[in-house]
Amino acid sequence: MSARTEIATLGEFGLIRHLTENIKLKNDSTLKGVGDDAAVLDYGDKLTLVTTDLLLEGVHFDLTYVPLKHLGYKSAVVNFSDIYAMNGRPRQITVSIGLSKRFSVEDMEELYSGIRLACDVYGVDLVGGDTSASLTGLSISITCIGEGEKGKVVYRNGAHETDLICVSGDLGAAYMGLQLLEREKRVFQGEKDFTPDFSGKEYLLERQLKPEARKDIIEKLREANVLPTAMMDVSDGLSSELLHISKESHVGCRVYEDRIPIDYQTAVMAEQFNMNLVTAALNGGEDYELLFTVPLTDHEKVSEMEGIKVIGHITKPELGSYLVGRDDGEVELKAQGWNSLS
Amino acid sequence: MSARTEIATLGEFGLIRHLTENIKLKNDSTLKGVGDDAAVLDYGDKLTLVTTDLLLEGVHFDLTYVPLKHLGYKSAVVNFSDIYAMNGRPRQITVSIGLSKRFSVEDMEELYSGIRLACDVYGVDLVGGDTSASLTGLSISITCIGEGEKGKVVYRNGAHETDLICVSGDLGAAYMGLQLLEREKRVFQGEKDFTPDFSGKEYLLERQLKPEARKDIIEKLREANVLPTAMMDVSDGLSSELLHISKESHVGCRVYEDRIPIDYQTAVMAEQFNMNLVTAALNGGEDYELLFTVPLTDHEKVSEMEGIKVIGHITKPELGSYLVGRDDGEVELKAQGWNSLS
Repeated sequence: MSARTEIATLGEFGLIRHLTENIKLKNDSTLKGVGDDAAVLDYGDKLTLVTTDLLLEGVHFDLTYVPLKHLGYKSAVVNFSDIYAMNGRPRQITVSIGLSKRFSVEDMEELYSGIRLACDVYGVDLVGGDTSASLTGLSISITCIGEGEKGKVVYRNGAHETDLICVSGDLGAAYMGLQLLEREKRVFQGEKDFTPDFSGKEYLLERQLKPEARKDIIEKLREANVLPTAMMDVSDGLSSELLHISKESHVGCRVYEDRIPIDYQTAVMAEQFNMNLVTAALNGGEDYELLFTVPLTDHEKVSEMEGIKVIGHITKPELGSYLVGRDDGEVELKAQGWNSLS
Repeated sequence: MSARTEIATLGEFGLIRHLTENIKLKNDSTLKGVGDDAAVLDYGDKLTLVTTDLLLEGVHFDLTYVPLKHLGYKSAVVNFSDIYAMNGRPRQITVSIGLSKRFSVEDMEELYSGIRLACDVYGVDLVGGDTSASLTGLSISITCIGEGEKGKVVYRNGAHETDLICVSGDLGAAYMGLQLLEREKRVFQGEKDFTPDFSGKEYLLERQLKPEARKDIIEKLREANVLPTAMMDVSDGLSSELLHISKESHVGCRVYEDRIPIDYQTAVMAEQFNMNLVTAALNGGEDYELLFTVPLTDHEKVSEMEGIKVIGHITKPELGSYLVGRDDGEVELKAQGWNSLS
């Protein structure tokens, strides 16, 4: 059995100190990190980007199958993804944790080890936060600050008619990973020594439990001198995000079913679950891939880039937003994405 | 009976849109607020300050006696206070809310009306956030971004021997307000139509339910050309904060019991509750006053400032941190402040 140290033995200040000690700052823009009323940053002539996410136990994650280290990693990475989606670079995060008596100091070490690993991988500084008791469960609130270059920040509202719609990686796998984990939980609830067999489905689990933000894609586009006209990350599902871009940019769009990138494992699982594969890819969410539009003149450049797929194009607003099926039939896009409040 | 609209009728995006529509941006540094993957800020040649707070129902607030509008106001103001405590100016906040089915759209409007009022009073822009279902209760996570001038940011670690220790306003009233509210709650639990009589105790309630951040003090010091050597806001109690400054600055301190500013209503309540008044003022917390040190040469300036009291001085570290009593006896300062995790 592993050690269990009660949080009360350290207290609030002691716990923060314990979790944040020996943090080495990596970015020149971080002048002062943890330990004062506020962190102090110097963004010089760069723009400052700010995004935030609140993750609640039982709503956004289920600790029966999500290891705390993975949860920490993912909580940080989903914020980095939002900064990349502005064509920025994440530089700092603050982390606030609410935790009930169920959790020990070792649990928090696990969670923070995941957060700190994500910070190391993406070159981000942990500069502050708050730790507090909660009556029930675990709450994680992370704010990420990043830098953007003037004139190079990419919003959702810049897509123009004839622009190409591109997406990185593949879609629907994280959703299938979640279905898989939920099924195993239901089937084997109560059986202590059961170890589910996930062989051949590792990719789906990884996409759900340890997603990555597409820093590489942002770097590739920059190297190729391609500046997207609009961009978002795919967190609520492709359909929902396409509608955001259409609405904010006052345009319509056409995306082609046979162009949507889907991994082989995702397809196999959809078959096993008797689910519509395209629906899963359109509405699954949590892919953290980048959805962006580029001018038609960049067609050759993006077509040659590994990990990027052109899936459609932007139209006049009056043409609406549709998925074009393999049979050339058109289905209107709807935001059926995951919505915790409905 | 007032109207009740279920959150589900709006959904997550609808609720955010509803609560954040018509926000007028007030600061030049806010280029883009709510509505994209991240907010975009331009701090030019200023430094960026970042602070964050997580407030959880049942731990940090009790909705049986805290109106949602007041809660929203206070949640924002306590973050502004942290920015002022760095000698900065709050400019932007992000607000993340987790809420259970108990809460209606009208409830969230109330909460946001308080947050927006605080933003108006202090000239701050609401630039983003997140709204999500929670299984139990209300969680509020606010991050505040502010600006500081290079060379003028005040940390906790700059206090020097012979510096004067100053505090704004008075201490212990918010704690007494909380005791009062808790007593009324216990006494009249269950009696629906009871309206407690708080006459003569308005100041204590206001200090607990609607605290203000000391923007005015920061402005006064700036006008008088006084740059504190160390500064914090008093959120966990004077004792706890003095120990933070002593530790971070590697110094000791002496504060004088008879110099600690205490309001008449605080004293009366302490008498009624049979509580030690000095203990309440030292450890009560939630005062959101500014505790700061200035060089001895600024003695005349700070002595003449209304709303500022010199309560002691900084010593060599080996002399420790003590309260000097009215009888000249010395009591070592201890951090008995409010600690949700012990």
